[in-house]
Amino acid sequence: MNDKINIADKLGLFDATWTPKIIGELNGQQVKLAKLEGELMWHSHADEDELFLVIEGELTIQFRDGETNLKAGEMYIVPRGVEHNPVASSGASVLLFEPKATKHTGEHMTSRTVTDQEWI
Amino acid sequence: MNDKINIADKLGLFDATWTPKIIGELNGQQVKLAKLEGELMWHSHADEDELFLVIEGELTIQFRDGETNLKAGEMYIVPRGVEHNPVASSGASVLLFEPKATKHTGEHMTSRTVTDQEWI
Repeated sequence: MNDKINIADKLGLFDATWTPKIIGELNGQQVKLAKLEGELMWHSHADEDELFLVIEGELTIQFRDGETNLKAGEMYIVPRGVEHNPVASSGASVLLFEPKATKHTGEHMTSRTVTDQEWI
Repeated sequence: MNDKINIADKLGLFDATWTPKIIGELNGQQVKLAKLEGELMWHSHADEDELFLVIEGELTIQFRDGETNLKAGEMYIVPRGVEHNPVASSGASVLLFEPKATKHTGEHMTSRTVTDQEWI
């Protein structure tokens, strides 16, 4: 049988922000943890919906037509094709659920893009 | 833009145990909440991996070769084809990620099977 996954323990394994770490895989989807601080960038994912579940801290997701403010225990599903910009001014830890192929900066390849995401 | 989803608020909307409620959908997968108390039944899902994330309480998942004990903030991915039996002796609330088509009792259709799962 597999090992169970303790989210707090996994969050203790890394400090880097904006660097999603993979903690699970199922049905072609991956479960990831990320630490966020400040602002990522405006981007969208053409073919993938993306779920953000806040574990600690607060996350604002900006959209072209508004924004949502998430605290621990709140989640948001960003539909494919929708431009968004995650902002965590005072820091947040989030769980992400998305297809295995999803790049966290969408169609944009920048110095912030982590193409070879690591399992922890 | 969509509404955000507050897990505690959603859990406040129902009391029924072993009756998963749908709270989100993305990439052909659904996010569900369920309240568990006692034992479900031994079953497996031929084509679907299933994720359990404990929100409150404690959940034991029994396998033919052992068991795992999960508390709040811990998760487990049951691979497709693996027989399992969820047991929550003193009650638990869990978040589930699974393909849209997944029946919570696997291949078994019993009086416990909820075929028309409700969105909340």
